[in-house]
Amino acid sequence: MNTPHILSHAGRLLLTASLLLTASTSAMATATAPAGSSNSPRYEKGMQVLRGLNNGQPQPVFEAMRREFPFLAESTASYALGDVWGREVLDPKTRQLAAMAAFASLGLRGFFKTHAGYALNLGATPDELKEIAYLVTVPAGFPRAIEASQALQELFSERGLTSPPGR
Amino acid sequence: MNTPHILSHAGRLLLTASLLLTASTSAMATATAPAGSSNSPRYEKGMQVLRGLNNGQPQPVFEAMRREFPFLAESTASYALGDVWGREVLDPKTRQLAAMAAFASLGLRGFFKTHAGYALNLGATPDELKEIAYLVTVPAGFPRAIEASQALQELFSERGLTSPPGR
Amino acid sequence: MNTPHILSHAGRLLLTASLLLTASTSAMATATAPAGSSNSPRYEKGMQVLRGLNNGQPQPVFEAMRREFPFLAESTASYALGDVWGREVLDPKTRQLAAMAAFASLGLRGFFKTHAGYALNLGATPDELKEIAYLVTVPAGFPRAIEASQALQELFSERGLTSPPGR
Amino acid sequence: MNTPHILSHAGRLLLTASLLLTASTSAMATATAPAGSSNSPRYEKGMQVLRGLNNGQPQPVFEAMRREFPFLAESTASYALGDVWGREVLDPKTRQLAAMAAFASLGLRGFFKTHAGYALNLGATPDELKEIAYLVTVPAGFPRAIEASQALQELFSERGLTSPPGR
Amino acid sequence: MNTPHILSHAGRLLLTASLLLTASTSAMATATAPAGSSNSPRYEKGMQVLRGLNNGQPQPVFEAMRREFPFLAESTASYALGDVWGREVLDPKTRQLAAMAAFASLGLRGFFKTHAGYALNLGATPDELKEIAYLVTVPAGFPRAIEASQALQELFSERGLTSPPGR
Amino acid sequence: MNTPHILSHAGRLLLTASLLLTASTSAMATATAPAGSSNSPRYEKGMQVLRGLNNGQPQPVFEAMRREFPFLAESTASYALGDVWGREVLDPKTRQLAAMAAFASLGLRGFFKTHAGYALNLGATPDELKEIAYLVTVPAGFPRAIEASQALQELFSERGLTSPPGR
Repeated sequence: MNTPHILSHAGRLLLTASLLLTASTSAMATATAPAGSSNSPRYEKGMQVLRGLNNGQPQPVFEAMRREFPFLAESTASYALGDVWGREVLDPKTRQLAAMAAFASLGLRGFFKTHAGYALNLGATPDELKEIAYLVTVPAGFPRAIEASQALQELFSERGLTSPPGR
Repeated sequence: MNTPHILSHAGRLLLTASLLLTASTSAMATATAPAGSSNSPRYEKGMQVLRGLNNGQPQPVFEAMRREFPFLAESTASYALGDVWGREVLDPKTRQLAAMAAFASLGLRGFFKTHAGYALNLGATPDELKEIAYLVTVPAGFPRAIEASQALQELFSERGLTSPPGR
Repeated sequence: MNTPHILSHAGRLLLTASLLLTASTSAMATATAPAGSSNSPRYEKGMQVLRGLNNGQPQPVFEAMRREFPFLAESTASYALGDVWGREVLDPKTRQLAAMAAFASLGLRGFFKTHAGYALNLGATPDELKEIAYLVTVPAGFPRAIEASQALQELFSERGLTSPPGR
Repeated sequence: MNTPHILSHAGRLLLTASLLLTASTSAMATATAPAGSSNSPRYEKGMQVLRGLNNGQPQPVFEAMRREFPFLAESTASYALGDVWGREVLDPKTRQLAAMAAFASLGLRGFFKTHAGYALNLGATPDELKEIAYLVTVPAGFPRAIEASQALQELFSERGLTSPPGR
Repeated sequence: MNTPHILSHAGRLLLTASLLLTASTSAMATATAPAGSSNSPRYEKGMQVLRGLNNGQPQPVFEAMRREFPFLAESTASYALGDVWGREVLDPKTRQLAAMAAFASLGLRGFFKTHAGYALNLGATPDELKEIAYLVTVPAGFPRAIEASQALQELFSERGLTSPPGR
Repeated sequence: MNTPHILSHAGRLLLTASLLLTASTSAMATATAPAGSSNSPRYEKGMQVLRGLNNGQPQPVFEAMRREFPFLAESTASYALGDVWGREVLDPKTRQLAAMAAFASLGLRGFFKTHAGYALNLGATPDELKEIAYLVTVPAGFPRAIEASQALQELFSERGLTSPPGR
């Protein structure tokens, strides 16, 4: 799953940041940090959520986004990861399955694949991920479901996963 | 929740068919029924699924679609409801939550509301439904999430539901 | 079919302009008319195409668009109607059926209905229009097809059309 | 422009909150407020931005969203309005014109109209708003541009605006 | 047209299955086959339709989907190909031209190209396919039409087709 | 910025045509040229606009489109470039920034990048382009904004541009 080539993919932007980063930012968190800047508690929470989703792996592409597009990196971390993915009413696996259905329906194949990986990390089975691809035929048509199934095939292959035949 | 005015809405097309219908069609089911026709076992399974989702209520608009657009009514029942919604790997509530995220992301407000109602019937709480609207901000932006929240507000109001403040 | 209430609909913007208009503009057509202005040959061709599609009926809403959004009215007439709808390789009915599939897939219900009306005027049968709604389930999912079927139901009802049951 | 009926529209959710609200929340702003809660500096900045966009008018629908969907209201205020609309590199008018092009292209008519109103408040002319509707024909096709022009027509009419003929 | 490299493309999933497969499945078709399973009459009809569209060529990618995503392969064959593409009111060429307009408008380039190939196989001329790309400018804007034209350019080049200049 | 590899990209279709072309077509412009044909004044104006946007560079892919898809090439030049991009109410830079927001929101990454290049040519700064990517999070969600930021990163890298850190 952590083969180098997957790092070049757009969807990978949402993966983790390094553990080293965490130590330095959490020490600087202040009340007046503007809009989710990288030393705010919200940003730090987002980084924690990301580590939980991504098995603690570092993610070089996110680091690049931090340098070139700091507002986008920080709002992805603080808002998308910290504020939204970090909420507690839904269990994390259900939230990722619902997010997968949204990404697939909108044709966001890379993001679908990344979040399918998160769902696996959270304990979802390959067969549960396939169900999300299947149900997408109803709201969004067959092409989006077929694209999603192809992304899952890549993911399963990268992770050496197979599911029992016949479903 | 079953006030007459909601029957005029597009999303309501997916609601139930009458129990009377069921008895007559199941008796006629044959092996050679073409493409999910209304006397096939797949159609009958779809009708069963729909009754499960919709608390057994009849649905006049679906009856109208059966008369005017028989292929669409039959494939909605046989494929969407029977084949897809009737699958068993995911639990029904999780499937409806994922479908809600897809409908909201695509701007399909009426379908979002109908499936939010199914999710409530399956035991989801109002707060769980709100989480789906909230997470839609990430894949699809704020307008689609706001539209979804407005559809939920209508649904909760029709059902006399309130959720505790502050989430 | 020409009941007053249908004139308030967005899709109706593409309907016809008055015959009176035509006489005056064609007399003024000049070579130097900029960008499809209302006295250009392209604009006049678009108006001719529109009369062919819409049984020669006038269309007040198009007149309003001409006053308030002249560039949009003129490019709709000159480009969309004259240059594109006026081409000759495909027969007009096939072109309208293809346009219907595009409008339905994008959730443009009003435009779908207007062009379904044009297709009827060009000789398509109600059953042929239903087939377009049915096929939309494959590229775009069931909701867009159901919305299209509802638009057709309105159109058929406005025109007093029924199709034989059972398809 | 502030007639009661416009308050029922979805796009109006993004309008202002009352001035009374502001006084009480700013007094409570604390460093530990989670994720843009209504007593955070980010929320307060969003409310300031909104007052700037909306001529200081109160907005009852936003108040309703605050009660029923507090997370969505707070993230709309803190993130969308405070963090994004409140940035400084682009001038506010250009930012609203660009947002209008995005809303129109996605078929988000109510949001397009609300932001067109903000652009007028910031000094854009009716003719500049029309140009945004016109350019949408290129990236998103004629229907989305026609829908945008209809939304502008409503807005201009609500505000008693006319633009000189002939553009 | 049947060069190996085209088999790697997503849109190719909809191509044919082997003739060998057909013989074995038709022998097993039973009345109780659930939901379009690979031994049902609906599945077999879908395979027949696919052979008609694709000049009887086998399609390895579809075989892979059958192993890894059996439900999706079977519903693609049974529902999309058998139930929908196999209907009879519209002639097959018109149905494919309409499907092309839908795929192009939704940005589904691979599916557009595959179905353009089917349309050629059914007797459509290159110039007729170009007309579909051209008309897409109106409902969906110039970028989707330009993408469609690029897909056609690839298809024509793979098949050694040229069309007379000047249209 | 003019490295050969960028010519293979879809978005590049909108770039310039050769200066040689211009001389021959302007000499032939006639009043009766149909629908923006390559010897019409509208086509010539579109070519002028394109040279203004693209620093006078030639564009081989556009030449190819002229041969294979003459209607599409001519309407792109005459309508999109000449009629729309050539309008005068908005300043050219603002128009390109708004077009960028539309392309990004629709997931048209190649077109977004091409028009970002035009905006740079018209005097926009890298930081202004980043703001467009940032604001797309609100109407269209985080994935479309992240894709836009990646396209900008490619563009800045091709042009040897860096922006000061920290925004």
